Amino acid sequence: MRTTLFVLLLLNAWYRAAAQAPTPLTARQDKVSLTFAVGPDGYPTYAVSYGPKPVINSSRLGLSFADGRGFDGPLVLVGSETKDVDETWQPVWGEVRNIRNHYQQLTVHLRQPAATGRKLDVVFRVFADGVGFRYEVPAQPGLAYFTVQDEQTEFNLPGNHKAFWIPGDYDSNEYAYTTSRVSEVNTAPIEAIQMKSAPNRVQTPLMLKSDDGLYVNIHEAALVNYPAMFLNVNVQTFSLTSQLVPDATGTGAKAYLQAPEHTPWRTIVVADNAPAVLASKLILNLNEPTKLTETSWITPQKFVGVWWEMHVNRASWNYADTSNLKLAGTNWARLKPNGHHGANTANVKRYIDFAAQHHIAGVLVEGWNVGWEDWANNWKEEVFDFVTPYPDYDVDELQRYAAAKGVKIIMHHETSSSVTNYERRQDAAYRFMKQHGYDAVKTGYVGRIIPRGEHHDGQWMVNHYAHTAQLTADSHIMVDMHEAVRPTGLHRTYPNWMANEAARGNEFNAWSSGNPPEHETILPFTRLMGGPMDYTPGIFQIQLESWNPARNKGRQVHTTLAKQLALYVTMYSPLQMAADLPEAYNKHLDAFQFIEDVPVDWDDTRILAAEPGDYLTTVRKAKGKDEWYLGSITDENPRQQPVKLDFLTPGQRYEAIIYADGKGANWQKNPMAYRISRQVVDSKSALTLQLAPGGGAAVSFKPVKK
Amino acid sequence: MRTTLFVLLLLNAWYRAAAQAPTPLTARQDKVSLTFAVGPDGYPTYAVSYGPKPVINSSRLGLSFADGRGFDGPLVLVGSETKDVDETWQPVWGEVRNIRNHYQQLTVHLRQPAATGRKLDVVFRVFADGVGFRYEVPAQPGLAYFTVQDEQTEFNLPGNHKAFWIPGDYDSNEYAYTTSRVSEVNTAPIEAIQMKSAPNRVQTPLMLKSDDGLYVNIHEAALVNYPAMFLNVNVQTFSLTSQLVPDATGTGAKAYLQAPEHTPWRTIVVADNAPAVLASKLILNLNEPTKLTETSWITPQKFVGVWWEMHVNRASWNYADTSNLKLAGTNWARLKPNGHHGANTANVKRYIDFAAQHHIAGVLVEGWNVGWEDWANNWKEEVFDFVTPYPDYDVDELQRYAAAKGVKIIMHHETSSSVTNYERRQDAAYRFMKQHGYDAVKTGYVGRIIPRGEHHDGQWMVNHYAHTAQLTADSHIMVDMHEAVRPTGLHRTYPNWMANEAARGNEFNAWSSGNPPEHETILPFTRLMGGPMDYTPGIFQIQLESWNPARNKGRQVHTTLAKQLALYVTMYSPLQMAADLPEAYNKHLDAFQFIEDVPVDWDDTRILAAEPGDYLTTVRKAKGKDEWYLGSITDENPRQQPVKLDFLTPGQRYEAIIYADGKGANWQKNPMAYRISRQVVDSKSALTLQLAPGGGAAVSFKPVKK
Repeated sequence: MRTTLFVLLLLNAWYRAAAQAPTPLTARQDKVSLTFAVGPDGYPTYAVSYGPKPVINSSRLGLSFADGRGFDGPLVLVGSETKDVDETWQPVWGEVRNIRNHYQQLTVHLRQPAATGRKLDVVFRVFADGVGFRYEVPAQPGLAYFTVQDEQTEFNLPGNHKAFWIPGDYDSNEYAYTTSRVSEVNTAPIEAIQMKSAPNRVQTPLMLKSDDGLYVNIHEAALVNYPAMFLNVNVQTFSLTSQLVPDATGTGAKAYLQAPEHTPWRTIVVADNAPAVLASKLILNLNEPTKLTETSWITPQKFVGVWWEMHVNRASWNYADTSNLKLAGTNWARLKPNGHHGANTANVKRYIDFAAQHHIAGVLVEGWNVGWEDWANNWKEEVFDFVTPYPDYDVDELQRYAAAKGVKIIMHHETSSSVTNYERRQDAAYRFMKQHGYDAVKTGYVGRIIPRGEHHDGQWMVNHYAHTAQLTADSHIMVDMHEAVRPTGLHRTYPNWMANEAARGNEFNAWSSGNPPEHETILPFTRLMGGPMDYTPGIFQIQLESWNPARNKGRQVHTTLAKQLALYVTMYSPLQMAADLPEAYNKHLDAFQFIEDVPVDWDDTRILAAEPGDYLTTVRKAKGKDEWYLGSITDENPRQQPVKLDFLTPGQRYEAIIYADGKGANWQKNPMAYRISRQVVDSKSALTLQLAPGGGAAVSFKPVKK
Repeated sequence: MRTTLFVLLLLNAWYRAAAQAPTPLTARQDKVSLTFAVGPDGYPTYAVSYGPKPVINSSRLGLSFADGRGFDGPLVLVGSETKDVDETWQPVWGEVRNIRNHYQQLTVHLRQPAATGRKLDVVFRVFADGVGFRYEVPAQPGLAYFTVQDEQTEFNLPGNHKAFWIPGDYDSNEYAYTTSRVSEVNTAPIEAIQMKSAPNRVQTPLMLKSDDGLYVNIHEAALVNYPAMFLNVNVQTFSLTSQLVPDATGTGAKAYLQAPEHTPWRTIVVADNAPAVLASKLILNLNEPTKLTETSWITPQKFVGVWWEMHVNRASWNYADTSNLKLAGTNWARLKPNGHHGANTANVKRYIDFAAQHHIAGVLVEGWNVGWEDWANNWKEEVFDFVTPYPDYDVDELQRYAAAKGVKIIMHHETSSSVTNYERRQDAAYRFMKQHGYDAVKTGYVGRIIPRGEHHDGQWMVNHYAHTAQLTADSHIMVDMHEAVRPTGLHRTYPNWMANEAARGNEFNAWSSGNPPEHETILPFTRLMGGPMDYTPGIFQIQLESWNPARNKGRQVHTTLAKQLALYVTMYSPLQMAADLPEAYNKHLDAFQFIEDVPVDWDDTRILAAEPGDYLTTVRKAKGKDEWYLGSITDENPRQQPVKLDFLTPGQRYEAIIYADGKGANWQKNPMAYRISRQVVDSKSALTLQLAPGGGAAVSFKPVKK
């Protein structure tokens, strides 16, 4: 009975909405224009164009509620406002010192057709490099708590663009990218990392290139208290529709909200050249400023760590080879050590020594705490306690040793996705950290989430990540999250949330089919649009067999050594690992000099050349210093990359140290050949970098003292 | 393909199992005997009898796993052992000083038919008053982590017994009992408290009475790391089968376990008289001894509190009448107070004064902390923070005031079932308590659970309750849980877990159709079999209209005043509330004297007369003192209850103070008429108590000084 009545009401609403004259509204900034309209059928739509070129054809907006009384039906436009904003702000750290936030805002006020209908606002911000918009449910009588069942946002593409995509998996982003036409999107043949969803579903940031030369990136900004947005691809019409990650109830519910509340911003970055996409600060601008006033404890840094040696089968996270242990009730001191536990006191000291010697601020130690013997794949709640070291890891001694050498140990909290267990123990874990001199933590979320049924990218986990960013901030702790939801610029709001993994990192080169040489040319256009990635570059010992011939047969990193150096510039992160082992670096200290020199915080950044899937050349100016660092990478094809040095300060001479692929270098056959050369240059100089197949080049420019 | 193969293997197994000669095994204690057999079909079964009378006819045992390789198919008996245990132990507090644990144990070792099959043990303990058994999955190669999908335990009743039952609701036990034949069980007409499950599903403890005079109680003991067991009733065959509470995944998974692990004990208490069921310590005996060695901080106590005045609409939990507030971002100091907030400093002082004057140890304060404005029914995660008082509740001043008066304030943590939120904040909340002099907490779990999709009685929540008992124990805090899973004797293991609600308490008399007069004669045979209940007795102002004529029209408690006194003896709890308002007590201080006198910890307990649904008379000896306290209650029928005083110490004279229903007393029409009389008695004396309809009597016996 109730259902029938509801349908009749909707029909009634439809007729009334149809009676109103749609009034298109517009907002624009430079070449980008946005049009909003309520169609003759009563449905609100928007469209975006770049100059004369369509970017998004007329596309539906909508939000449905679990109570059936959401905003997925016809709506009435009851008003609108515009405003212009032009301001400049300074991030705590980042790629540039100053960020301009310049947009025209259009707010449309919508209502369900009945005079007493619920109200919804849609807010659009139009920048010179794209559009962001979000739904806002204002405070209003009779609408307090509501459940978002679905979002009907469409992105109707005007053509069959080239797309760089990874499959929809609500629990993992660790896929290699497929490049195809939109019409060819099909995730079915791709092996799942955790659990793929529908075959036509892909993740954001989705990078697109149109045949008429537009570069378009679709993502979201400020993902807070809401599930991540995926995209359902219609391969016939090239229409993309929002797909929110469901919760555990199996009812299809997506987000439990309380008015006033808003969704994250849906973002469309557009430009007529690829570098402009990478230079866009649209997503960061759509995030809230930080509330932190004292940020001196947030220190961008490089680090080494007890980590890669586990990936290359030289050491283990676990202390014993016994399995089926229980956290409570195991006498860890009595376990028989396996003899190759990485996080032992002596080994960690070796890393501390290396870090101290080479001015690396941090030493990450994974596998220091009990629970690694059977931590993964068991959907087990009590795995780690985050405060009990293995018998061979002397917390106090290492605290003393690291402090004496001026190095900080970076804490590691692998949760194995037992997040309820982690949340119970976070207070104690952070107290333990502060007591023992740790001020940064790398967290991990490998495996299936507990609360069981929740997803890595659902609302509950999204809230957990933000909660963790806040909790760590409260304790002046920096955090680097692995296997969390992909970022959406929240490092503006939480500048202690330094980095995320949330993509296929360098580690895949150690134990899977690896990352194809184009991978690092795509990541900046996709994953990095939302924020820094802890990609863990810096692998020098490209061929991994030498570490463990039996277990690493044929395995190698899919780049040249020089390209590994270039990544420190092309992939921005305020936390950058020098991921290889000290013994690998000690064989190539001349090359390591670039890692030692390269900063992690910048005054300026210029994208000199870029094409997703093909190549990328970036140069950055060190924060507060007249030093520049350049990284240039290519895909599997060799490339000559000319570089004009007009970014250098006119009249100043610099010593350029060029770390290039060596003669005959090739990512497959001769990856470790490199060549270091020096020359004095100025702003009128030019370089031509020779990039090997799968190769790259890194250059440092330091002023020559007069 | 794999499914077919599996079916063939099972058939094969069936033939092999059938080939083995079943060997019935037995264990016994006094009149109770247990038989175990593997039937010709290979399925393990058990049966229980009491003397010549069958208690449980041959009933199947089984445990199925999510991997399809559990113990629900035919099994082979590979061995067995028996042992006899007779020991006595002392609880930290309780109904008796010494508890005898006397049983014969039979362990059967079962195996899946293949020689390499998985192994399962079933352990039976046979007591003089019943049987407990559990499944144990021993440590074994190839079986570490497993998921229990279902349990196939049957309880095949030999007849169409009279049953006292409440509907299966995985989230609430707050139902009035239905008394019917097993064949008439049908929960469909009963209004749901939270969400009823199938119409033939009931909860345990299930009380049964056979036509041949046996009293049988089915429940479980030591519910840890496993969901609660419900019972599916076959109304034709009188077979009951276990139904475990599912988890949130929607896959039907019930428990995530790691070998070695065992289920809770399934318990069958049996006797040929009703008092023997109430005297049974079988469930307590099947729980693990506490690991606490220092327990002096655990202090059984009575308490008053700012609580009933909210139920009778004299005060509110909330401070303001504003709704749709958010925990973060509300300026609580600026809210407009509604003028009738109960937990204000002055009002709490009034309760402290009353408690101090009458030697009541504790004062519960509900509604002291921010968040009550719209705390319920919103499935909202951030409701309470457990550390922020309302502007009119002065934590420091009340700490000082209570300490000066020698009274302890009891903390209240309503979670609104947002358990993830509570778990995040428990550390801070308990630190706050200790800093402010609180050493007991009443917790509450009203509403739908977060993690969403989990149930109050599922494995995850069962673990939460135990976790909370452990956490509070670590901080030397006593805990009283409301709306938690019904208890299973875990107060032996966690003696700081003083009480639970987990049934329909006295509060229902304030705001619903109330509890029928028989209710309190059934609870001891059902809910209280598992442990103490915080029933909140002691309502003197039976007619509730006087508190708020407009809102309480016609409402009243469904007992006489004297019966309220009797409940302090008939319903054991080491935490007993005197639930009414000081102003109600001040009008009847002569009657209140019984509450002031009655202890909460006992050396001995005798059930003098009992019949579920009809009447109950209990007498108890105060711990360490030669004082006795008697409670006698009846259902809606008046009753003469003769009481022989042969429990008193021979040769000692006592003053008996008899708090009885007054002349013409009647729970409906004249509930507040009571009469207090005194007489000197000894062990040869006898009393005849006159119980009014819905009435009761309480008697204290104190030695007359010679």
